[in-house]
Amino acid sequence: MRKENISDAVIRRLPRYYRQLSEMYARGVVRVSSRSLGVEMGITASQIRQDFSCFGEFGQQGYGYHVDELRREIGHILGIDQDHRLIVVGVGHLGHALLQNFPFARTGFSVQGAFDVSPTVIGTAVNGVEVRPMEEIEASLRDQPVDVVVLTIPQFVAQQTADRLIALGVRGFWNFTNVELSSAVPGVEFENIHFADSLLTLSYRIAHPPIKEENP
Amino acid sequence: MRKENISDAVIRRLPRYYRQLSEMYARGVVRVSSRSLGVEMGITASQIRQDFSCFGEFGQQGYGYHVDELRREIGHILGIDQDHRLIVVGVGHLGHALLQNFPFARTGFSVQGAFDVSPTVIGTAVNGVEVRPMEEIEASLRDQPVDVVVLTIPQFVAQQTADRLIALGVRGFWNFTNVELSSAVPGVEFENIHFADSLLTLSYRIAHPPIKEENP
Repeated sequence: MRKENISDAVIRRLPRYYRQLSEMYARGVVRVSSRSLGVEMGITASQIRQDFSCFGEFGQQGYGYHVDELRREIGHILGIDQDHRLIVVGVGHLGHALLQNFPFARTGFSVQGAFDVSPTVIGTAVNGVEVRPMEEIEASLRDQPVDVVVLTIPQFVAQQTADRLIALGVRGFWNFTNVELSSAVPGVEFENIHFADSLLTLSYRIAHPPIKEENP
Repeated sequence: MRKENISDAVIRRLPRYYRQLSEMYARGVVRVSSRSLGVEMGITASQIRQDFSCFGEFGQQGYGYHVDELRREIGHILGIDQDHRLIVVGVGHLGHALLQNFPFARTGFSVQGAFDVSPTVIGTAVNGVEVRPMEEIEASLRDQPVDVVVLTIPQFVAQQTADRLIALGVRGFWNFTNVELSSAVPGVEFENIHFADSLLTLSYRIAHPPIKEENP
């Protein structure tokens, strides 16, 4: 159950905790204090304790957190163990790159299929996933409903394609189209990838080098 | 100059403000209060005022913010008007997709070139940018230094390629390799795109539908 008071900012930090803890677990770290977790992540210890307190009691006074337990617990909260299913709609270069390289399984998703309108890609397979014609999507979703559609299609068909998929029961969109999609249907979730936000953050950092370097 | 006390969280909100204000500007909105800007963005008004106060005085008591002025001011802080230059290293599907579709110019970057090791892409052009052999990168960076390298290469060559580029004077990396890169060289900035964080946020939201819907 989602608690009413869990802010988007907290939710967005969960994958970062999961990533950091997975990395520590891989390094063989067994336990960690909120202070050292904070140092590694650039977050204050009190912020970390406050974030975790939204979901229950994880740490132990004087011991800190058990890295693997906390990692699995956060993974569970994120739904990684729920075997979500998805399809990729649009197998241009970006869709192809995701099918080829993105570790869907490691984030708890299995790829049920891929769809496109272009005869040049229909019938090909990427990483074992066959690209099927868009006309088959109705039948496919009726037989095998999915939790998420990865939208990697051109902007001008983004909203209409989303609407068509929502009418077919899709409620989750991983949206790479750079169009802000919306729907009046309740319960539809859009997660937009904003590449530009990331590049602009880098732009800021190179435009404003640390003070230390300016006055050596 | 970067002020010491500006947190990464504030910096990461700047592109979101810029995006929101650009969108309002395009809609013809002339002025906005911190309260309504907050409502549109899901941020509190006091957070917004606090964020902006890091960079000076923007709003006016009783008037709010002039949308276009604030948009341009934040764009300036982000370095959008500095005409940064970049190259793309790795023109596989992802590099190709970025060259083809990403609005580099709109974020203040001009694409100076693209490089790859594969004979199948060397000599081709994507969106007017010719793909050159990786051996030419030393000469290219000597003639035309760049601010940022977009890294869209396989994981196993990520760190070594970054090191090679840092030795050539590159200080900014837009890193799509899913490898956490590092460097002992001062002033090197890595901006990592973590696709998985975004998908996991969506995973959380579909795993935890709003309470309202659970108790209709």
